[in-house]
Amino acid sequence: MGENIGSVARAIKNFNIKYLRIVNPRCNWPSQKALATSVGAKDVLKSVKIYDSVEKSIGDLDIIFASSSRIRKVNKRIISVTNLKTKITKGKKIGILFGSESSGLSNDEISCADYLVKIPSNKKFSSLNLSHSAIIFCFELFQYFSGKKIKYKTGYKSSVAKKSEVNRFLNFIIQGLDKKGFLQPDHKRQSMIRNINNIFHRLNLSE
Amino acid sequence: MGENIGSVARAIKNFNIKYLRIVNPRCNWPSQKALATSVGAKDVLKSVKIYDSVEKSIGDLDIIFASSSRIRKVNKRIISVTNLKTKITKGKKIGILFGSESSGLSNDEISCADYLVKIPSNKKFSSLNLSHSAIIFCFELFQYFSGKKIKYKTGYKSSVAKKSEVNRFLNFIIQGLDKKGFLQPDHKRQSMIRNINNIFHRLNLSE
Repeated sequence: MGENIGSVARAIKNFNIKYLRIVNPRCNWPSQKALATSVGAKDVLKSVKIYDSVEKSIGDLDIIFASSSRIRKVNKRIISVTNLKTKITKGKKIGILFGSESSGLSNDEISCADYLVKIPSNKKFSSLNLSHSAIIFCFELFQYFSGKKIKYKTGYKSSVAKKSEVNRFLNFIIQGLDKKGFLQPDHKRQSMIRNINNIFHRLNLSE
Repeated sequence: MGENIGSVARAIKNFNIKYLRIVNPRCNWPSQKALATSVGAKDVLKSVKIYDSVEKSIGDLDIIFASSSRIRKVNKRIISVTNLKTKITKGKKIGILFGSESSGLSNDEISCADYLVKIPSNKKFSSLNLSHSAIIFCFELFQYFSGKKIKYKTGYKSSVAKKSEVNRFLNFIIQGLDKKGFLQPDHKRQSMIRNINNIFHRLNLSE
């Protein structure tokens, strides 16, 4: 369906993958519905290549992974998508085969793949939406190809407040609480103030 | 939209997560469209809880992660979704906040979270579909909670063919090729046969 193709186009572009190939699309092509669900991945849709057989679609590639939610009785190495990265060889062109949303890949279609790849999931509910499967593959590939561990920093800049500033703030609070008669009875006042000090000094308040 | 909620329900059930909470749904609830896109995750939709504020929706939880595609100027720790597992504490109830498909979470909504979590992605096209974000979080959580490394075995059982069987097959092939006059000229016949033997003995053919 066009909607699914559009969602896949968006998903793969989210992870910097540009090439989408389709074998015998069931919808008319190009598809307006695909354009709608792609939400801006127009360039991916424009460069889609259409083929009439799986064999032809993979002719120029080196390593083929077939996505499958079912463990099948096929004579094929089966790996988890989390191990995908260990099977990628530098300089080789890789392709990932996905079946249709409704029935997945046939055993004939799988026969030209090097590996069957499964996404570890709930055994009682393991059938993923097509674009959901695609985005998990792309997520794994992106991590592999982007290499280094990513660390994020917030753009928020504010120094930790000096103790004198925290104390000024605390004096203000305590004066207010005294005015409202909150720090009563008198013999508990000091321990309540100590608790308040403990709380606010622990917070690493910013300026 | 109902479609998005249904897709999220399916996505989280794929990874064994049962609880979905919605703050101020824009569609009527329960939603027929959600039911359609959930493709069998009816139980998740039936147990959805509806809230009228983010604060109320997280009242009983211990650690809150807010999903965000933008690095914001907020005074909040920012981590990658691949590090989510390092922030989970045993026995604590965790919640993950997602914003709407169109505009994400507001800074006010984020203020009650412990961490801002980002999915590393294409910097020039980083806005993921709501259910796509959700499934990547669930995929990461599932790997953490299922713990052990998963290895798959094919159900396909077939012993490797004995060398005598491979040789019988090769003799059959060579007789056939001789009959068709393929192994010509005569002085190259032996090296062609050697190549054929090399190819088929390397294959680990099954019986």
